[in-house]
Amino acid sequence: MTPSPILQFDRQQLCVLDQTRLPYERCALSLCSLDAVADAIRHMQVRGAPLIGATAACGVAIALSTDASDEALGHALKVLGATRPTAVNLHWALARMARVLRLLPPASRAEAAEAEARAIMAEDVAVNARIGEHGLALLHELAAGRDGPVRVMTHCNAGWLATLGHGTALAPIYAAHAEGLAVEVWVSETRPRNQGLLTAWELQEAGVPHRLIADNAAGLLMMRGEVDMVITGADRVAANGDSANKVGTYLKALAAHDNGVPFYIAAPMSTIDFDCPDGAAIPIEERDANEVREVRGFDAAGQPAQVAIAALGTAVGNPAFDVTPARLITGILTEHGVSAPNSLRQAAA
Amino acid sequence: MTPSPILQFDRQQLCVLDQTRLPYERCALSLCSLDAVADAIRHMQVRGAPLIGATAACGVAIALSTDASDEALGHALKVLGATRPTAVNLHWALARMARVLRLLPPASRAEAAEAEARAIMAEDVAVNARIGEHGLALLHELAAGRDGPVRVMTHCNAGWLATLGHGTALAPIYAAHAEGLAVEVWVSETRPRNQGLLTAWELQEAGVPHRLIADNAAGLLMMRGEVDMVITGADRVAANGDSANKVGTYLKALAAHDNGVPFYIAAPMSTIDFDCPDGAAIPIEERDANEVREVRGFDAAGQPAQVAIAALGTAVGNPAFDVTPARLITGILTEHGVSAPNSLRQAAA
Repeated sequence: MTPSPILQFDRQQLCVLDQTRLPYERCALSLCSLDAVADAIRHMQVRGAPLIGATAACGVAIALSTDASDEALGHALKVLGATRPTAVNLHWALARMARVLRLLPPASRAEAAEAEARAIMAEDVAVNARIGEHGLALLHELAAGRDGPVRVMTHCNAGWLATLGHGTALAPIYAAHAEGLAVEVWVSETRPRNQGLLTAWELQEAGVPHRLIADNAAGLLMMRGEVDMVITGADRVAANGDSANKVGTYLKALAAHDNGVPFYIAAPMSTIDFDCPDGAAIPIEERDANEVREVRGFDAAGQPAQVAIAALGTAVGNPAFDVTPARLITGILTEHGVSAPNSLRQAAA
Repeated sequence: MTPSPILQFDRQQLCVLDQTRLPYERCALSLCSLDAVADAIRHMQVRGAPLIGATAACGVAIALSTDASDEALGHALKVLGATRPTAVNLHWALARMARVLRLLPPASRAEAAEAEARAIMAEDVAVNARIGEHGLALLHELAAGRDGPVRVMTHCNAGWLATLGHGTALAPIYAAHAEGLAVEVWVSETRPRNQGLLTAWELQEAGVPHRLIADNAAGLLMMRGEVDMVITGADRVAANGDSANKVGTYLKALAAHDNGVPFYIAAPMSTIDFDCPDGAAIPIEERDANEVREVRGFDAAGQPAQVAIAALGTAVGNPAFDVTPARLITGILTEHGVSAPNSLRQAAA
């Protein structure tokens, strides 16, 4: 895997793929202002916890390229920090930018901001490569003495689209595929935003065998013994190992636990929030009702189109994340290896 | 509730609402032959375990209206019995028709078949009314000493659309609403066929407060304490209480169990298959991949439309049901009252 083609950055401009249009259209967005970057994060044109973090860092650099005063820096941090509440990588990246930039005189900040954003981007690629290696070892253990592929289930998209390269949950799968270790992936649709289709698109491009399922099918497949491992990304892992990820992850973890299927979270250390004691303290974003009411796809002519499945007035609940308790998690896979959910502090040490 | 407007029947013809077009279009189907009835069941234009049973009974009567020979009867039973494997009400209704009709000379069969089909239809309405009364008592228990509505979560559609009247899982909700007991319903979308939208449509028409959610949101809502009870229908309940219902039900039952939320199955005794020892013996229907690939709704002009969310070649898994183990079920609600899942034989006695 090469670094993600998803994000190109110079000091005044960030070019990203619009993920709300994928896999139906490949549209590049050019973001040239703080507000444009903030909007792209808010509306999930840029999504995935690691990618959001890097994008926010670039947003700070873009803001400082025209005004690097204390006020401008404070404003940029505040605007970007308010875009999405759950993914902690966003706040981690902003805190890191603030730490570096506040010590510098304004005249040096624009250049330093660009350099720090680039460092965050490069580190993400390296970190995810290591997550891939550690996960590959787990896949080898599962493959030992078995006929047929290792059957991995994932949820949402934690692939290269969600990061600067390799992905988190998909990094071990790409590493296995590159090595010739047979894997097959159950891709759950991930309503309401259908990010599973981004995963299917990535896997299709990479030639990794996979099958798309409705989110509802996860339990039956595990009960039948058709899943060897579940691996998902995370948006925030609390100090005790409770993990917030895309809504529906908790249901998969329950089914995995009930059927003796190992359940892993794959995330960089920057996703672990040691200031957050447990899952109850993780803020859960409630998103717009139209995300549930509307579905994107292709029309009969193969053109991007959208349908409303429910009338505009239909009352909707749309929490974007849920929390998987640490007791349901077999291990948390970071750049440092596989940790038990209750020993994250040792991993960080 | 009056008997369902969903099915009108005379000896030569069955008129039903096409449930694949609801809630976007209200289309009546006129079914005048055995094959037309079988196709309507197979393609889920007629759906819901109790409604399928009654429809199959009508299909036998329609077939016998033109040829009531032993061969024609045997053929009708075989064709209808092969339409869908999981819902046992279909097989129950056909076995009941066979029992009555095989004893009669061919000349008497057409009239007897119509009478028996009408008896099945009428009994379904009466049985569901009793399920509603028994369920209402449970809702009253939950409402005691509480401010605000009883918050019930359901899955798929087990309302009047799925039966000849009242519904099964929704019968207690309609009974509560009629009595002025405040209830609010979490309606899960129920991908891939989105039968939750049929439930939302029913509840909207009846004026029952409800909120639509992605199936993935069920776990978080229970973890947060926003659900007081889960109630679903069933397609087949094994002798030990293991219950097959629309795929995704098992995930809701796991989340209910993990959070101390009572989980009930509502079904007529005709859904209980005492010949089936446990859930592992229940055949699970695998349906067409296009059900996962395609989504129906309204286009921007408010016209019925459909989009493809995944390309035609995308590999898909599409099991239509899953099995909820008896250990996760608080009670099974039949016309005889609430039974523990392990004491169904006593309920039948």
